[in-house]
Amino acid sequence: MYGEIIAIGDELISGRVLNTTSTFVAHKLTLSGFSIKRITVIGDDMADIKECLLASLQRCAFVIITGGLGATADDITNEAVAGALGLDLEIRQELLDKIEECGHKCDVAAGAYLEKMATLPRGAEILDINSHAAGYLLRYKGKVLFFLPGVPSQLKAHMENQVIPRLEDLLGAGQLILYKVFKVFGLGETEINQRLETFEADFPDVQIGYYPNFPEIHVSVTARGDGGKKGLKSLFEKVCSRVRQALEKEIVAEDQDCLEAVLGRLLLDKKGFLAVAESCTGGLVGQRITSVSGSSGWFECGAITYSNEAKAQILGVPREIIEEYGAVSKQTARRMVAGVMKLGNVSYGLSLTGIAGPTGGTPEKPVGTVYIGMGTPEKIFVERFLFPGDRQEVRMIASETALDWLRRYLKYGTHIPGYRPASASH
Amino acid sequence: MYGEIIAIGDELISGRVLNTTSTFVAHKLTLSGFSIKRITVIGDDMADIKECLLASLQRCAFVIITGGLGATADDITNEAVAGALGLDLEIRQELLDKIEECGHKCDVAAGAYLEKMATLPRGAEILDINSHAAGYLLRYKGKVLFFLPGVPSQLKAHMENQVIPRLEDLLGAGQLILYKVFKVFGLGETEINQRLETFEADFPDVQIGYYPNFPEIHVSVTARGDGGKKGLKSLFEKVCSRVRQALEKEIVAEDQDCLEAVLGRLLLDKKGFLAVAESCTGGLVGQRITSVSGSSGWFECGAITYSNEAKAQILGVPREIIEEYGAVSKQTARRMVAGVMKLGNVSYGLSLTGIAGPTGGTPEKPVGTVYIGMGTPEKIFVERFLFPGDRQEVRMIASETALDWLRRYLKYGTHIPGYRPASASH
Repeated sequence: MYGEIIAIGDELISGRVLNTTSTFVAHKLTLSGFSIKRITVIGDDMADIKECLLASLQRCAFVIITGGLGATADDITNEAVAGALGLDLEIRQELLDKIEECGHKCDVAAGAYLEKMATLPRGAEILDINSHAAGYLLRYKGKVLFFLPGVPSQLKAHMENQVIPRLEDLLGAGQLILYKVFKVFGLGETEINQRLETFEADFPDVQIGYYPNFPEIHVSVTARGDGGKKGLKSLFEKVCSRVRQALEKEIVAEDQDCLEAVLGRLLLDKKGFLAVAESCTGGLVGQRITSVSGSSGWFECGAITYSNEAKAQILGVPREIIEEYGAVSKQTARRMVAGVMKLGNVSYGLSLTGIAGPTGGTPEKPVGTVYIGMGTPEKIFVERFLFPGDRQEVRMIASETALDWLRRYLKYGTHIPGYRPASASH
Repeated sequence: MYGEIIAIGDELISGRVLNTTSTFVAHKLTLSGFSIKRITVIGDDMADIKECLLASLQRCAFVIITGGLGATADDITNEAVAGALGLDLEIRQELLDKIEECGHKCDVAAGAYLEKMATLPRGAEILDINSHAAGYLLRYKGKVLFFLPGVPSQLKAHMENQVIPRLEDLLGAGQLILYKVFKVFGLGETEINQRLETFEADFPDVQIGYYPNFPEIHVSVTARGDGGKKGLKSLFEKVCSRVRQALEKEIVAEDQDCLEAVLGRLLLDKKGFLAVAESCTGGLVGQRITSVSGSSGWFECGAITYSNEAKAQILGVPREIIEEYGAVSKQTARRMVAGVMKLGNVSYGLSLTGIAGPTGGTPEKPVGTVYIGMGTPEKIFVERFLFPGDRQEVRMIASETALDWLRRYLKYGTHIPGYRPASASH
């Protein structure tokens, strides 16, 4: 059952704003078994909207149109669709009441603007009267058109609560789709490909996809079949377990899970608390750990010791160590992690000190050089890494390497990091 | 001079991967004065590629096609375009040599794959023989087609160094476009609209756009005219200066600049150093500050005191204060900022303690309650805020409020934050 998406907005066509909504809509539909054949992005232009809408209706069973439902002058979707399909426009009193009520609460400019938002093509079925910007549905010559607000949070709620259930009612359930994502860190795409390349030949009904999601690579496994096809589920699970075997330690998380949350649960299992000492990452590791709700159950504290003085003052790194070996050194990383573990009175610690760039590199320690320390009840490990990329990429991959290293230690008892350390070790 | 973009890839049409490349291409073209009328996203499907390509050529002067130039089986762009335009395919030896050379270096699987990448439609002009994946240009019935690799870094280099200069050569320079972005924090879209609404009537040649870029709203000013149009520049600058007057303190940065960098320069001017104490933001403020290269010139250190014990131990917040008023309180925020300024021996400090959610809220201190402390040589200020949104949004808007508050203090001498504090102040 094919559908298309039309996204309307000058801000999209000019490249001013990233079109995240179409991606979200397409992904939701795909996972529900509805296939999208085309996404068309156009500006706030009456003729373009009409032409695209009529062309899409020729090609597919349903169309999702996003954007242009707002109150400002450039929001012309309702007018365009009425014109394209030969429908009158009418003020919907129930919608006007709701918008006015909300307008007062939200301090929105009142008057003619609100009336415009409540003026819909005749026959429009309002999807959710309580939504701030009401999306609606139109049936036209056996086809279904959904008009959705472009604001991400509203669009999301409309997709999940309205569009998917209604599409299933109107067109029948989509194909059975089984889908899983393995989030991989420490292997390149070529290496992953080599480990998995026989799978596609062995299991032709299962599709394997590779999607770089820096610094991870996400490997998707998709099995499609008719609702009643026997054995699809067991086939799917067989492939997933083979992928797990092939990638093993390199899988940091699956599906909606993430490295930070996986690490948190491992610490929780051990009743261990973590403290971090960050220099070049400047708080990124702490921020990632605490992005997980409940992280107070395993995270104690962090020290962002950007200056040498702070490394000495807060973490007790001896000034002689910094002078002799430098702030970016194995010795300093070791003292940093020891210092922060003592400060937080915890049994696990991570430290990062390096040169994120673009300046500060030397022939001996070029940009991208980062020392990471991992403190455990057993001992402290320190490795030197050389990460590629610009400042933000170096910081991101360094934080990932540190978090993943501790995950591997806690889960597999290995002290070998997932990202290969640099050979030269000073 | 209108153009269109066609983006090819199953990963795009299924919503698995965000289509950042089309946005980048559109933005580059727009800023160079070439207008994009349509972006079409399709899967790796021969018939769809052919149909879209021929339809686009009917409508516009140039087409940019991205994706599907790689070595794997689903990369069928070259074959499709040859079919659509009736061109033969031929192996380009100079390209094959380059790819093989690079393939050895990059450890890419060799053989038939590489030959595939070097097989282009007859007449293809290779844009940059030294690029990893070569894009090319085709001229067809007075129209220009650019085929570009989908990998962001390669695409970017191709757009800047090849596509824009060649388009200017082939089609003449684009319209003169003057463009500026004002990044605004602390005002809603409606409030900004009210301050600027007369502008569009006063200056019909200048377009003002509003783009939410959480937690900021970006206001763009665009003036378009023919290359020789007199007065466009002075008109543009007049509007920009009027926007600056109207939004004044609420503008945190302009164009490519950002709040973190603006704040850094203000601290540098004062020869002031900053230290931050974070609880609910968990390192986000530090991470944002240190995302700016050179931030060691104004940033001393940070303490991520997630637990109560860490607040007492590292920052010296008296345990009685935490017990009596709670970790999320005006009193604790005040002691946190005082503590971290002492720790770092600096004259400026920020502290944040709050409830980011989704759990931990109480009737008195609901989710979103955050106390921010700002330490200055003059005195310590503390305000209570109630931020909307989910965990990540609360953290993001809290970090923005803290950084912006200090920016306003340093730039305007005001101690009033840009985001309005909650009225109830405990």
